[in-house]
Amino acid sequence: MIDPIPLQVTAETFAENINALGASINYMWILTVSFLIFFMHAGFAMLEAGQVRSKNVANQLTKNLLTWSVGVTVFFLIGAGVSSLVGGGGFNFVPVDDPASWGNGWFYGAVFAMTAATIVSGAVAGRAKLRAYVTYTFLLAAVIYPVVTGITWAGGYIQFGDAVFYDFAGGTIVHAMGGVAGLTAAYVLGPRIGRFNDDGSVNVIPGHSMTFAVLGTLLLAFGWYGFNVGTASILSVSAVTVEDGAITGGIAFNGAVLGRVVMTTTVSMAMGAIGAALVAWAKTGKVDTLYVANGLLAGLVGITAIPDAATWWGALLIGLLAGAQLPLVFELTEKLGIDDVCAVFPVHGSAGVLGTLAFPFVAADLGPSVANAFLAQVVGVAAILGWTVVATGLIWYVLKATGQARVTPEHEQEGLDVSEHGVETYPEFGGSDSVVADGGPTFKTDGGSDITEGDNE
Amino acid sequence: MIDPIPLQVTAETFAENINALGASINYMWILTVSFLIFFMHAGFAMLEAGQVRSKNVANQLTKNLLTWSVGVTVFFLIGAGVSSLVGGGGFNFVPVDDPASWGNGWFYGAVFAMTAATIVSGAVAGRAKLRAYVTYTFLLAAVIYPVVTGITWAGGYIQFGDAVFYDFAGGTIVHAMGGVAGLTAAYVLGPRIGRFNDDGSVNVIPGHSMTFAVLGTLLLAFGWYGFNVGTASILSVSAVTVEDGAITGGIAFNGAVLGRVVMTTTVSMAMGAIGAALVAWAKTGKVDTLYVANGLLAGLVGITAIPDAATWWGALLIGLLAGAQLPLVFELTEKLGIDDVCAVFPVHGSAGVLGTLAFPFVAADLGPSVANAFLAQVVGVAAILGWTVVATGLIWYVLKATGQARVTPEHEQEGLDVSEHGVETYPEFGGSDSVVADGGPTFKTDGGSDITEGDNE
Amino acid sequence: MIDPIPLQVTAETFAENINALGASINYMWILTVSFLIFFMHAGFAMLEAGQVRSKNVANQLTKNLLTWSVGVTVFFLIGAGVSSLVGGGGFNFVPVDDPASWGNGWFYGAVFAMTAATIVSGAVAGRAKLRAYVTYTFLLAAVIYPVVTGITWAGGYIQFGDAVFYDFAGGTIVHAMGGVAGLTAAYVLGPRIGRFNDDGSVNVIPGHSMTFAVLGTLLLAFGWYGFNVGTASILSVSAVTVEDGAITGGIAFNGAVLGRVVMTTTVSMAMGAIGAALVAWAKTGKVDTLYVANGLLAGLVGITAIPDAATWWGALLIGLLAGAQLPLVFELTEKLGIDDVCAVFPVHGSAGVLGTLAFPFVAADLGPSVANAFLAQVVGVAAILGWTVVATGLIWYVLKATGQARVTPEHEQEGLDVSEHGVETYPEFGGSDSVVADGGPTFKTDGGSDITEGDNE
Repeated sequence: MIDPIPLQVTAETFAENINALGASINYMWILTVSFLIFFMHAGFAMLEAGQVRSKNVANQLTKNLLTWSVGVTVFFLIGAGVSSLVGGGGFNFVPVDDPASWGNGWFYGAVFAMTAATIVSGAVAGRAKLRAYVTYTFLLAAVIYPVVTGITWAGGYIQFGDAVFYDFAGGTIVHAMGGVAGLTAAYVLGPRIGRFNDDGSVNVIPGHSMTFAVLGTLLLAFGWYGFNVGTASILSVSAVTVEDGAITGGIAFNGAVLGRVVMTTTVSMAMGAIGAALVAWAKTGKVDTLYVANGLLAGLVGITAIPDAATWWGALLIGLLAGAQLPLVFELTEKLGIDDVCAVFPVHGSAGVLGTLAFPFVAADLGPSVANAFLAQVVGVAAILGWTVVATGLIWYVLKATGQARVTPEHEQEGLDVSEHGVETYPEFGGSDSVVADGGPTFKTDGGSDITEGDNE
Repeated sequence: MIDPIPLQVTAETFAENINALGASINYMWILTVSFLIFFMHAGFAMLEAGQVRSKNVANQLTKNLLTWSVGVTVFFLIGAGVSSLVGGGGFNFVPVDDPASWGNGWFYGAVFAMTAATIVSGAVAGRAKLRAYVTYTFLLAAVIYPVVTGITWAGGYIQFGDAVFYDFAGGTIVHAMGGVAGLTAAYVLGPRIGRFNDDGSVNVIPGHSMTFAVLGTLLLAFGWYGFNVGTASILSVSAVTVEDGAITGGIAFNGAVLGRVVMTTTVSMAMGAIGAALVAWAKTGKVDTLYVANGLLAGLVGITAIPDAATWWGALLIGLLAGAQLPLVFELTEKLGIDDVCAVFPVHGSAGVLGTLAFPFVAADLGPSVANAFLAQVVGVAAILGWTVVATGLIWYVLKATGQARVTPEHEQEGLDVSEHGVETYPEFGGSDSVVADGGPTFKTDGGSDITEGDNE
Repeated sequence: MIDPIPLQVTAETFAENINALGASINYMWILTVSFLIFFMHAGFAMLEAGQVRSKNVANQLTKNLLTWSVGVTVFFLIGAGVSSLVGGGGFNFVPVDDPASWGNGWFYGAVFAMTAATIVSGAVAGRAKLRAYVTYTFLLAAVIYPVVTGITWAGGYIQFGDAVFYDFAGGTIVHAMGGVAGLTAAYVLGPRIGRFNDDGSVNVIPGHSMTFAVLGTLLLAFGWYGFNVGTASILSVSAVTVEDGAITGGIAFNGAVLGRVVMTTTVSMAMGAIGAALVAWAKTGKVDTLYVANGLLAGLVGITAIPDAATWWGALLIGLLAGAQLPLVFELTEKLGIDDVCAVFPVHGSAGVLGTLAFPFVAADLGPSVANAFLAQVVGVAAILGWTVVATGLIWYVLKATGQARVTPEHEQEGLDVSEHGVETYPEFGGSDSVVADGGPTFKTDGGSDITEGDNE
């Protein structure tokens, strides 16, 4: 008697199971990194809150909460559809999409979009009306940012010869876009009272808490691993196909790209902090903490366009330059009379452009010619930032012209927490008394009176 | 000569390898999301610390640390076993379980249980004795919460006709349970001194740091993605079986559910913040930051029962209502003379019930009739919250009757940090001097004297 | 007519696809947990910032930022190569590695290395020069720590009979190494001014913010799940091989180990907090918040050497002892006149040794004899800590002898934020005025004057 032939596996069964595994692995990765990117909002909120005066902290926090809340809703109903429309795919009304795509499509795109949006709030701190800011956020999420992704990631329109504009995780598309939008808005709004003197000299208005600023920096760095590494798929090919009696395709692991991205992101971040520390030390003999923190972030921004492409020395160099340019570019914005409160332009703008333009010179393996690649980068940066400046400037000019952009000087002096939100961030600390301001106390109902520290102790 | 037949794969080898891959993917997902849910303790600690007076911050932080520490140990030795006993599976002594189940069974359940437990501390802030709170936490982790999960997730006892009580990630089982437990405990304890006047009017006692409160909000939102999305398996079917010479079953990816959960969680959170902001704005003309933050959380709670089931417009609507009801319900608790310090009832209680009861009206695909489904939801909510109120009320009444529930008025005025913990949270800030109180200084040994700011500088 | 034979799957196709899936799952796990471990830097920064005076917070934060930035760069260029050299694999210049290995090799190793490095900063707070600290960090990342991992994880040199030194996730290799390095550096540096009196009695210098300290604790606990659980592979075997016409190997899921690690890590952490709380309560009748927080961390450190090996009762016991020893060991360091500002020795040093030495007595399944296993642990601990003490002591003695170790008494009194960094952490709070110190204001350019609170409001 012969052995029975063991049960074997058909190509169809094989493909079904392998493909389900591949799809689940890719999806788990996308969700995990999207959560990390969402977490950057905690980072931005702390980074910005720490860099403003205590009288404006609640305003800054509220702007951060509403950037996410308003922005993501708008991007769900409008923005993602506009991006697809501009990219040549027709308007895509996300609510009717296939549900699975809500995770690896819309949500994944939304956390990038909201990163761009939230950068702006750091530049306009301390004097923008909440309503103006929310209006701008609405338009950014609905149109300004979607146009940028539409012409790049979605449409791939920007080309020069054989080179296509390259921006892996959004060094320019997300960060420089946000940084330049912030700079433009800050320029139109004008500086905070007391920031610049009539003779052109500059006053420092230090933030109220270095601890929150550095906390925000580290929360952002954590989320950034999602931002950069997460943009690399965990599988480069994720499906087997069975056709004409043959198995084709198949699962391929994307390890080399993932490894490069995590390495370049790490060393560029590190060198950004070192570069800023060295410049600070050279200028003053001391190592300003905020330089180091913002330098670390500039190092991250610098590599964001090309973490999958840069050589190891390229990543070290870009980080160093991104950190070192920070104090210099910040001073330049001051010389121009622009009050970019949280230094969003040197951190997100110029650092993002630096890395994007450096692409052809530090790429480990460049397909097109260096000249073509560089020109495609230049054209892309110019198109994205030109559009951002024009659209942002126009909106803030209209807001300003109609008296909607900026709070009154009295409210600015008093602080936006009281005038815009009716709260005090630290009722027990600082020079202010502990009584919540009239008109909008936290959770206050009619008929009661505020309780003071004295009453209670 | 003919080609040799290529080596092929037997069904058994195929199944073994595919099943190991499937098991590892599911397990990785469960661990990742469980870590995120654990992270919510950092969020709760900050959210609550920010909303109490500076003299009670260390007390609030200690409660949070001990909620987790005591609670999870009790849930390991007793609570998880009680849940299984109530659910009809016999008492399950977790330490003798199969080790693999410690990760995707006990630990996964524990992080949900501890979320329910920690909600309570926000309601009883500023006057409950530490020992009373720890006693209650012990009983919550050992019995109160396990009974709730025993009759629902474990036992599935609550039914009406063809409908079974539905609560996907714990909108009522975890959040409303915690919120109602907090409200009950706060009611029995009575309000903080000075919170309400004899004429029924209300005083505001603002928290000491809006920054920590908003930080906590954003940390919680991050963890919530684990809470909601993590409740959806990454694979809906995860094993191939080989039986009677045939391969059955097979890996199936759960993408449609995952995508829906991440979408509904996101837009409901966003609309919660918007809903609360709009109501605040309508009432006072200003946008109270704490409303927006708590509204965002209420939006998350609102969708937690049904993130896998709600339509997109249902999620938008539930978020909006969950946020909008927050200020109104909070004022109602004030009118009832209940001092729910961190607004845990409007955030976790009423918002959780709202979403749970809305289930049949917003579900994309409802099996049973709307009437049956609604009545099953009503019965479930009533059973869970009724049990919670009775058990919680009983414990706190006994603690109160024996003089164990509440610190003395002198200690309450002085602050619980000194009286219960012998520490000051901010020895350098505020009106207090920098000397640590006698009897319990931080890391102090005999024979030394406290150093003051003056001595040191 | 007969049915066509269905297309079947060759062993090679099977192996290729299965192996790609296995590799991607392992890699995703390593990246995810490495991100969590990186996140511990946010935890350390907050934990330490909270435990120092407000005049030294920015200094502490800067040290944390530079520990990561300088350390990880050095570990990329030098340290990882030294570890491999010491371990017998020749010097490994990481930049020329296979890119995929940058993720699951270098980066994974780097986040452990940087954890060891960052522990030291908590011990030397408030008086070490920034340059001295950065110099030490450079040498720790380049040589001291790589030698430790070289003789253990890489080389496996430490043996006694049939037993090899066992340290699963770095209870001694990472934590005790860092804790002992910190103690040594603190001893050589000498205490802060005012910390000890001439009669041997002790002064408490309380930290400036319990809230940041507890926040740091919880952020660390979150990251620790990566540290411990992440050290367990998600797959114990991850590749199929096809050889000599047969399929061998195959995917095996590592669930039992993962489940054990997450359980032991959780209950040891919990019991650490409880143990410290009980000792604090027994000594003073009050539950010191910082004891509870540091006890929770000591419970985590205690189990870190053996989370995959300990029985459930062993994990409970180790946590309890690790927490309970904390106040006692801390007082011992005070009696020895060592000013270990953030208690890094009791938290990371003695707790790490405790768990490492306990290995043979609490292991669920011990291969070698208890005596041999214990002696291997003793030898390993002695070798690692002896090397650490000698190398660290030597470096700090040289720094001290050359006047490079410590700031001047005037600068110490003034605070290191001003003298080393030219910033104030809280310009609006505390006794200090809001003017940024001369010489190094944040983002200040020439020609301007600092703005004071008064000017601005």
